[in-house]
Amino acid sequence: MEPRNDTIMKIEIISTGDELMSGLTLDSNFNWAGDTLTTLGFDVAYHTTVGDIRDRIAEAFHIAQNRAQAVIVTGGLGPTDDDLTAEVAAEYFGSSLELNQEAYDKLENWMKERGKVLSESNKKQAYLPACSTMLDNKWGTAPGFRIESQGMIFFFLPGVPTEFHAMMNHYVVPELENRAQDRMKRAMRLVKIFGLPESEVAERLRGLEHEGVTLGYRSHRPEIHLRVCSFADTESHAQKLTRDFVDEIQSRIGEYVFTTEGELLEEVVGRLLIEKSLTLATAESCTGGLLASRITDVPGSSTYFLEGIVSYSNEAKEKVLGVSESLLQSHGAVSAPVAEAMASGVRKLSGSDIGIGISGIAGPGGGTAEKPVGTVYIGLDVKGVGTSSYKYQFSGSREQIKIVSSEKALDMIMKFLIMKV
Amino acid sequence: MEPRNDTIMKIEIISTGDELMSGLTLDSNFNWAGDTLTTLGFDVAYHTTVGDIRDRIAEAFHIAQNRAQAVIVTGGLGPTDDDLTAEVAAEYFGSSLELNQEAYDKLENWMKERGKVLSESNKKQAYLPACSTMLDNKWGTAPGFRIESQGMIFFFLPGVPTEFHAMMNHYVVPELENRAQDRMKRAMRLVKIFGLPESEVAERLRGLEHEGVTLGYRSHRPEIHLRVCSFADTESHAQKLTRDFVDEIQSRIGEYVFTTEGELLEEVVGRLLIEKSLTLATAESCTGGLLASRITDVPGSSTYFLEGIVSYSNEAKEKVLGVSESLLQSHGAVSAPVAEAMASGVRKLSGSDIGIGISGIAGPGGGTAEKPVGTVYIGLDVKGVGTSSYKYQFSGSREQIKIVSSEKALDMIMKFLIMKV
Repeated sequence: MEPRNDTIMKIEIISTGDELMSGLTLDSNFNWAGDTLTTLGFDVAYHTTVGDIRDRIAEAFHIAQNRAQAVIVTGGLGPTDDDLTAEVAAEYFGSSLELNQEAYDKLENWMKERGKVLSESNKKQAYLPACSTMLDNKWGTAPGFRIESQGMIFFFLPGVPTEFHAMMNHYVVPELENRAQDRMKRAMRLVKIFGLPESEVAERLRGLEHEGVTLGYRSHRPEIHLRVCSFADTESHAQKLTRDFVDEIQSRIGEYVFTTEGELLEEVVGRLLIEKSLTLATAESCTGGLLASRITDVPGSSTYFLEGIVSYSNEAKEKVLGVSESLLQSHGAVSAPVAEAMASGVRKLSGSDIGIGISGIAGPGGGTAEKPVGTVYIGLDVKGVGTSSYKYQFSGSREQIKIVSSEKALDMIMKFLIMKV
Repeated sequence: MEPRNDTIMKIEIISTGDELMSGLTLDSNFNWAGDTLTTLGFDVAYHTTVGDIRDRIAEAFHIAQNRAQAVIVTGGLGPTDDDLTAEVAAEYFGSSLELNQEAYDKLENWMKERGKVLSESNKKQAYLPACSTMLDNKWGTAPGFRIESQGMIFFFLPGVPTEFHAMMNHYVVPELENRAQDRMKRAMRLVKIFGLPESEVAERLRGLEHEGVTLGYRSHRPEIHLRVCSFADTESHAQKLTRDFVDEIQSRIGEYVFTTEGELLEEVVGRLLIEKSLTLATAESCTGGLLASRITDVPGSSTYFLEGIVSYSNEAKEKVLGVSESLLQSHGAVSAPVAEAMASGVRKLSGSDIGIGISGIAGPGGGTAEKPVGTVYIGLDVKGVGTSSYKYQFSGSREQIKIVSSEKALDMIMKFLIMKV
């Protein structure tokens, strides 16, 4: 890599917490912030992680102050004794902790709304460095704050990922963008691919490059995500660069691209079902409800999702879904005829237009020489169209087999909906 | 947290790579190393991440040399132009890159075994700092190396996780253990809590401390995890310290502790069901299959989990679960009588001992003044015991409401199983 352009703002991220140092928690905040800020054209230059120890936190502030233009600190703002960030920040910047009345009132209110009284440990969260400006946390109890010092800015945000993300978007990103107004305009798109191996995606995209456009590649098993980001002097120019690049990706990757707008696969399926006024029901064995749970993660899914059956036992397959005993005995529960019978059983039971059935072996036990762990059958039954099924051989852990099976089922529904005129 | 014992070896980990800074890759090596080394009783004191830029890598070496006793560098040993670690290390330690004949022969051999010829870019990997000792990489092509300087040791390992793990276990851990023979013995336990807010947990644990024992908190919504770690001269002493401390936590937190062994809540429920030879079935509305999916994440769950129904539509509640139309009309689908009827309906349908029913409003739409988003009823029906239900008011996103509802349902089953003689 070439040295960075010196006009780009250098950012350091400091993560604090014993649980990060000891491997108890994976630091997803840094990953998220790196993604967000790089996409926006900032130079995420350094990342330091230290445990909940005063000297080490202060040392991290000192080092960051000497090498970055903006510092984002995450963690250590909670109510417990090992939450030291506010205290260390006050001392480091030669200030002291003071009760912030606004923070206190908001905390009290937050508790009151939930029928609770402010405890002594919660009160601690309202004490902020006197030299700081409070950043109201609308998503949790720990207020954040910011401190400006010698032309630099420090942001202090909670470590809980949902709160960190919300406060990054609400306070940090707008302020950083504001401070870097001469920055180039940017246009970003997120392309998601399912069904092609990573090496094949790399092969198909070989040589694809364009000045002013960066392509970021990320394996998000079982999907591959491509981030296309263009920088130009005007927004419309940046958008055109991105659009042309995404078009070229689509023509090379074809139907394996399921979105160029960053949607979830279950969102794409939901959108298509609404567009075509069709309803869906699921019958799951090895995925154990994961498919239904993913479908119902989408707000408004109750308009097209009628019912899901998790038929773990053979008896449930017979009694609820009407899969015949003889089918189960002659082919086994993990078979094409049973997956199809599950799909049509749940479609008839629920009165939906589309039924999908999944039967497989998620492991780690239960595999045989003939049907090893990872053998999965998916059946699709559509009113007025008919029934079909496919066999797959997946690999990985129990959880990975559940995920890829549910992904394949969603993909199958999507492909049917796209082909259907 | 108290300052660490100074006799424990301080370790710094340095991760290099543009893909880490831009959020394209999550740094699992640091997480893995933190877990491994902390468990062995080392103090993983600092972690620094920098991109593939010479100055920044050298700066990270310099800072680490001044504050740690051992440094582990991961990444940047590959064949491409942005793999700079060996070059920067040679310059930093006042040495130069030299062809390492042993490394070269091994590389050539590795390629030959795979029917390939050594490329120019691969040859680059055999050039190591003259002042270093080669660490043979039996798991990939990039050799590692180690450099001793001023009583300190630097290890340089590849960034590919499988190679990093293997070389950590093969070279780094034995050498560090050797250098720290007077190290204290360590005992660790992971306590998990559900049902008490963090501030209340903090309140109840206030003042709880013991020499040689550290307590780490982590909010893992909706759970709270506490890691208790003791260091002592003998292993049995460390274990006793930990055990006593965990006992004290249990007596202060009470029934909200669901494991002191780090189990998942669904694992605890599964273990209790097996112990008591009982079976389970679920009927879900707002959780949409998440409860069934969590239960079936546990290997072997097919021995106690019979069936799950995701009855999203009222029709499914009536037809499959036998919830009466009049009940649905007089109380509404989100009500105590319907949650109870769902629980008993699925219990009878499946022939299980325990049935659980969840009905609620996950949002973001669908709320009313009387039943706002987050209103959730959970019903429990047990063969030969009877039916009960509880109303909850949760807050947060759709996903968070699904998660906490499924957690509460598991908790309810667990509590029943514990009380049952």
